[in-house]
Amino acid sequence: MKFLATELIQKKRGGLELKDDEIAFMIHGYLDGSVPDYQMSAFLMTVFFNGMSDRETWTLTQLMMHSGRVLDFSHLGIAVDKHSTGGVGDKTSLILAPIAAAAGIPVPMIAGRGLGHTGGTIDKLETIPGFSCALSIERFQEQVAKHRLALIGQTDEICPADKKIYALRDVTATIESLPLICASIMSKKMAEGIQGLVLDVKWGSGAFMKTVDQAKELAERLCAIGSAGGKKVVAVVSDMNQPLGRFIGNSLEVEECLAILERKGLRGRALSEFSDCETLSLELAGAMIWLGGKASSAADGVSMAREILESGAALKKFQELIELQGGRLSELPQAVATQDVVSSAAGTIRSFDTAAIGSAALMLGAGRQKTTDVIDPTAGIEALVRIGDPVKVGTPLFKLYGKKNLSTVRDRLVLATHVDNSLPSASAGDLIAFKNY
Amino acid sequence: MKFLATELIQKKRGGLELKDDEIAFMIHGYLDGSVPDYQMSAFLMTVFFNGMSDRETWTLTQLMMHSGRVLDFSHLGIAVDKHSTGGVGDKTSLILAPIAAAAGIPVPMIAGRGLGHTGGTIDKLETIPGFSCALSIERFQEQVAKHRLALIGQTDEICPADKKIYALRDVTATIESLPLICASIMSKKMAEGIQGLVLDVKWGSGAFMKTVDQAKELAERLCAIGSAGGKKVVAVVSDMNQPLGRFIGNSLEVEECLAILERKGLRGRALSEFSDCETLSLELAGAMIWLGGKASSAADGVSMAREILESGAALKKFQELIELQGGRLSELPQAVATQDVVSSAAGTIRSFDTAAIGSAALMLGAGRQKTTDVIDPTAGIEALVRIGDPVKVGTPLFKLYGKKNLSTVRDRLVLATHVDNSLPSASAGDLIAFKNY
Repeated sequence: MKFLATELIQKKRGGLELKDDEIAFMIHGYLDGSVPDYQMSAFLMTVFFNGMSDRETWTLTQLMMHSGRVLDFSHLGIAVDKHSTGGVGDKTSLILAPIAAAAGIPVPMIAGRGLGHTGGTIDKLETIPGFSCALSIERFQEQVAKHRLALIGQTDEICPADKKIYALRDVTATIESLPLICASIMSKKMAEGIQGLVLDVKWGSGAFMKTVDQAKELAERLCAIGSAGGKKVVAVVSDMNQPLGRFIGNSLEVEECLAILERKGLRGRALSEFSDCETLSLELAGAMIWLGGKASSAADGVSMAREILESGAALKKFQELIELQGGRLSELPQAVATQDVVSSAAGTIRSFDTAAIGSAALMLGAGRQKTTDVIDPTAGIEALVRIGDPVKVGTPLFKLYGKKNLSTVRDRLVLATHVDNSLPSASAGDLIAFKNY
Repeated sequence: MKFLATELIQKKRGGLELKDDEIAFMIHGYLDGSVPDYQMSAFLMTVFFNGMSDRETWTLTQLMMHSGRVLDFSHLGIAVDKHSTGGVGDKTSLILAPIAAAAGIPVPMIAGRGLGHTGGTIDKLETIPGFSCALSIERFQEQVAKHRLALIGQTDEICPADKKIYALRDVTATIESLPLICASIMSKKMAEGIQGLVLDVKWGSGAFMKTVDQAKELAERLCAIGSAGGKKVVAVVSDMNQPLGRFIGNSLEVEECLAILERKGLRGRALSEFSDCETLSLELAGAMIWLGGKASSAADGVSMAREILESGAALKKFQELIELQGGRLSELPQAVATQDVVSSAAGTIRSFDTAAIGSAALMLGAGRQKTTDVIDPTAGIEALVRIGDPVKVGTPLFKLYGKKNLSTVRDRLVLATHVDNSLPSASAGDLIAFKNY
């Protein structure tokens, strides 16, 4: 044995930089079982407290990337994917992936499940009866080659080190570490075989990064790692101080995406009420088209994305994706509203505790408290108001879909809605683009 | 489930103070298995970084103390024990315990094994053929009642929480945390059923605390916890910048203690060459006699201790202890010197890396690198020089006893001896007594 795990934990604990072979000892040792869970969790906590240098983070990223298969789509052109740091009602993948694929960009998307208070693309798609996210790697590669778009869940074959470490971080309060977040995201995306990556780095009450500065720092570090790996990376720092769009919950979010793709209203709402979700999806899809070499600028990419969306070509690509992976869209289960949550105060909606709204959706059955929990596909929340809206006592704030924990959810949602009757409303944040190209 | 372990880890990670029931959730959960090793190690690392308040430390101490049996010797008078934070050649227990017992103080001593580079009382006594440290608690209580002195090793019955947590700390680099050290020491000693405790808090190159200020801080926190528990506690901060006495190693240290108790030389050395060990033993025994109510001051206690030592009463008590626990002192195995380590430089001994000397003894076979290693009872090191001694190239520095790793040990010992030919020698530290009485 070249090193002792305790000595390496101690070194990082003391704030010293680890050498490449020292980090490799920990990661390989954890994968082969010679470094047990309890030593890895102590190590991860020292990283939480003392951070990692850019070099250490890059080494960790490479080690995790090469812990499994590394795909390559370069024979198809510039493959591009998108990654979001996670939000509430964040459903843009289902809109932007078909748009980019319809523009001719290969999009090999490996997506995640819901995490904490945030939803996951896989959970949403699996509410479509028959849809399978468990394609073999070979089938995944073939589908991307033939149809430009395939969407699967995490597999043991790609980044097993990240998978194992992520599961440990989840139960040891070591998620919120910038270098660990960076290495986890970038190792997975780089192993996917992409050449370009668009990052949606969210900030605000519904994001893991609470301030715009934290989000910018994360965006910059992710771009730096992408650069080091020879990838084209663009980051969009986006506002997550209120749910994106109007619906939170798995089948409800698929419905909202379909409404945007079909250019029509939903459940008594006009299409224009989903404009925040549509705008962000187009911004991200435009960046993908630009990175993929099909547009000369991000702005041109966004124009192309809008044309593809409005022409119905994106809808067609989405329907094709669902069909290819066995889904029957016409059988999407229909959510039924069970009750409204009303305001107990009068004034203006000042802000939301958006993470608490995400957790409330989880409690209704839209997410998991532990990995073995079963999701209720139609459970969720409809946001009836947005920041800046005036409310009276008794004004409906949210519509609940689902049957579990109704009174707790009601209380949580009222607490999560901050109504003020004196000051003008806070303005929502703007999109900020970082270009590393 | 009242709490989530991850939420409590997160709370401590954020620097917040935990409530009593939150700490109890972690400790009880760890004992019953509902909090797994990997969560406890992440938690311990947050404590390493963010510390614990006095109240948290006291709560942790009480929880660990009450995780097993709590003994009571108050019917016998004021029972007193000593605890050392660990050193190299630290053999005072074998001298002071018989002195205090001969003065009429009940001494129920639960001692440890070697840890890292430091030796353990149990390992030393077990080199005496037949000697058993594995008495039942009932036998232990009876022997203290009848003979004032019994000495056993750690058992599952007393402080099982400390035993389990200590083993985890040892392999996760979470030993060096002041609140964890304090709770571990004080929970064990308080469960022993003592009324008074004398602490030997060591500082220097052979101690866990490297500076006198760190040692003082530890001494003060230990005294505060003892006070909170209604115990009389005195701490002596003592110098551990060179081995205590001349011998390191299990049977060799028993020999050195016997020489001091028998008032005679050993292996060609005069009794006066062991004066540092004798002085510290008398200082600590004097404090025990004082705390036990048999002397009116610490100084009076030291005078009494010296009389008891010089009268042969301490020797008699030691022989009685060994006999009661089955040992045959006349059969103590005799160490044989295998080679000398000589100086490669000329000048004055400036300092030692005393921990490295302890580790060298361990490599010779005097200690364990893992719990399953078997000790060589006669392996060890004799220190031929002390700080301030002049040396020439070729002057013998150490005598080795044992056969394993001789060339590595030789190199380590030369590196651990700092010879300087220009400056005057550094003075060794003084004893500093803190009284909390």
